[in-house]
Amino acid sequence: MQTSRLKNIRNNDRLIYGRGCLSMLGDIIKDKRELNNKYVVYVIDDYFINKPLVAKLPIESNDQIHYVDVNQYEPKTEQIDNLRDTILQKSGLPAIIVGIGGGSAMDIAKATSVMLTNPGPSSDYQGLNLAKIPGVYSIGIPTVSGTGAECSTTAVLTGPIKKLGIKCDYTPFNQIVLDPDLIATVPKNQWFYTGMDTFIHDMESSSGMFYNTFSAAYGDQSIELCYDVFLREGCGQNEINDEKLMVASLFGGLSLTYSEVGVCHALSYGLSYVFGTRHGYANCLAFNHLEEYYGNAVSDFKKMVELHDIDLPQNQSENWTEDEIHRMAEISYNLPHMWHHALGPDWENKISIPQIMDLFRRM
Amino acid sequence: MQTSRLKNIRNNDRLIYGRGCLSMLGDIIKDKRELNNKYVVYVIDDYFINKPLVAKLPIESNDQIHYVDVNQYEPKTEQIDNLRDTILQKSGLPAIIVGIGGGSAMDIAKATSVMLTNPGPSSDYQGLNLAKIPGVYSIGIPTVSGTGAECSTTAVLTGPIKKLGIKCDYTPFNQIVLDPDLIATVPKNQWFYTGMDTFIHDMESSSGMFYNTFSAAYGDQSIELCYDVFLREGCGQNEINDEKLMVASLFGGLSLTYSEVGVCHALSYGLSYVFGTRHGYANCLAFNHLEEYYGNAVSDFKKMVELHDIDLPQNQSENWTEDEIHRMAEISYNLPHMWHHALGPDWENKISIPQIMDLFRRM
Repeated sequence: MQTSRLKNIRNNDRLIYGRGCLSMLGDIIKDKRELNNKYVVYVIDDYFINKPLVAKLPIESNDQIHYVDVNQYEPKTEQIDNLRDTILQKSGLPAIIVGIGGGSAMDIAKATSVMLTNPGPSSDYQGLNLAKIPGVYSIGIPTVSGTGAECSTTAVLTGPIKKLGIKCDYTPFNQIVLDPDLIATVPKNQWFYTGMDTFIHDMESSSGMFYNTFSAAYGDQSIELCYDVFLREGCGQNEINDEKLMVASLFGGLSLTYSEVGVCHALSYGLSYVFGTRHGYANCLAFNHLEEYYGNAVSDFKKMVELHDIDLPQNQSENWTEDEIHRMAEISYNLPHMWHHALGPDWENKISIPQIMDLFRRM
Repeated sequence: MQTSRLKNIRNNDRLIYGRGCLSMLGDIIKDKRELNNKYVVYVIDDYFINKPLVAKLPIESNDQIHYVDVNQYEPKTEQIDNLRDTILQKSGLPAIIVGIGGGSAMDIAKATSVMLTNPGPSSDYQGLNLAKIPGVYSIGIPTVSGTGAECSTTAVLTGPIKKLGIKCDYTPFNQIVLDPDLIATVPKNQWFYTGMDTFIHDMESSSGMFYNTFSAAYGDQSIELCYDVFLREGCGQNEINDEKLMVASLFGGLSLTYSEVGVCHALSYGLSYVFGTRHGYANCLAFNHLEEYYGNAVSDFKKMVELHDIDLPQNQSENWTEDEIHRMAEISYNLPHMWHHALGPDWENKISIPQIMDLFRRM
């Protein structure tokens, strides 16, 4: 195990965990809503339009609700810029931004928080430590678990030329609200695809060179929880497993703070960039064919797919053109931090665009 | 497993982990030292007087160094008040306070940070959320692992009438620096007593009613790491175990954020209050005789004591007067949150001062 590169991690300032803790949102918001123009922006997955969840939120008359469509595409830089402009034009700088939903809603809220105070297009901030001004106070409330976006220091965006996160001191949520009740009704396929994002994070974190004892402690425990939720006796969607999956997602994200994702995420980014494939699903499509990188974890993954009767189509590549496969491979190849972690500092000698194209052809 | 009481946890704002990360302290401090009267207070365990560690610190000419004697007694409220007054009289409000040492040095730094800005004696703030003004920016650098003081929301103090922590939003360190190199030279007995504080935290956390899935995830992983460090093949003081013990301590502390300590800590507080017994050692004296509360963990503890040839005297109570035993039992009994967690809401029907006196007579 190599000693990590040294990184000074910015934690979420505050964390609340437990069944029913959404009910504390009003108290959490109360003191903070006196800032700036004294109103709250809610960024909510449009799945929740006319759902009971919205009625439970402490929304006041001058607050803004923005429902976001995250079904078709992953968050785009243009979408963030438009949302920022709409918010500011309507009521000026808000006191608080709250993100409610899965990883996409989390990332939209995190990115918008930063872009409300930093000038110019969000594509200018894709990279490390490019934003210089603290964002608006941000609160993350996940309603599906697995992405780790609730604790990660990155807001992943697809821009005009790349899929890459805004990663800076101001990206992490100031407050996260982890209420296992909120993930109880996630449809089974989505529960699985998103949950597997954590399992894959853990496997990628532990199989690369930036792994250290800190990452291992979080990753090992996250793996244990994933096996409880997805493979061991008593697995499946139920109350205790919802509690465990919510913690597994958090721990998987925290494992990555010192480590990195690897081959699977590099491929998944290619899929999402070219076809807009949703992140968790794209990970599953790729991971299913990566035995030589992740060994037994892939056979365990296949058992989980079968056990929960999950839709996971094969032979997708039959419908892809050579040009599409080449574009995906280029996007994947241009994620050096992932390949470096997975394959070592001489990764360029170990993987090439044609080899990556072959990996895509398996899918 | 009972769903937790809901608590909104204040995290350390920042965390850095890894061998050699102490070398980043200068960069960490640089931006912050422009606050208030633009100097840094170092609170350092006096063990480090004339040791190489001090030469590695980025101390500037107007900074203050205060060595603290933590060998004889645990931190006292009077000591905090005197330190606060000395600091302020000499140079006014500092920009930063840095605590370097074990749990006592950590707690002195945390408490002094709060008392530099909150008026009156620190004994007025022993309890929950009594301090109303944010403290001075605080940095914790543990040099012995196990107490969890680096991440806990409490600064434990012995006052004129009780041993009880200052526990509020402003107690946790803003920044923690976890460098496993710093614990490499801890003398064996202290390594063990302090490390066992974590093992006992984990056992107390998991055996009481406030335990939840969040606490379990941290506690279970901390227990695994403790077994690696203290009992399994490859155990003992070495590089990888120093890395693990540092994470075990952090996770043990984080497990307690939702849970609580129990019977062992209640007895240990009595010992420390009456005799000034150091906390980790007091825990070991008590835990050794608490099979009926902690089952196999106590037999594992005994194996660890034997394996590492640790000094753990027996029959201490032969030298204690009935009055001393009674005073210890009273101090212990007056920690209702610990007994409530350990024995349930009807704890007063399950334990009495005479019964606690019997527990002390075993030691």
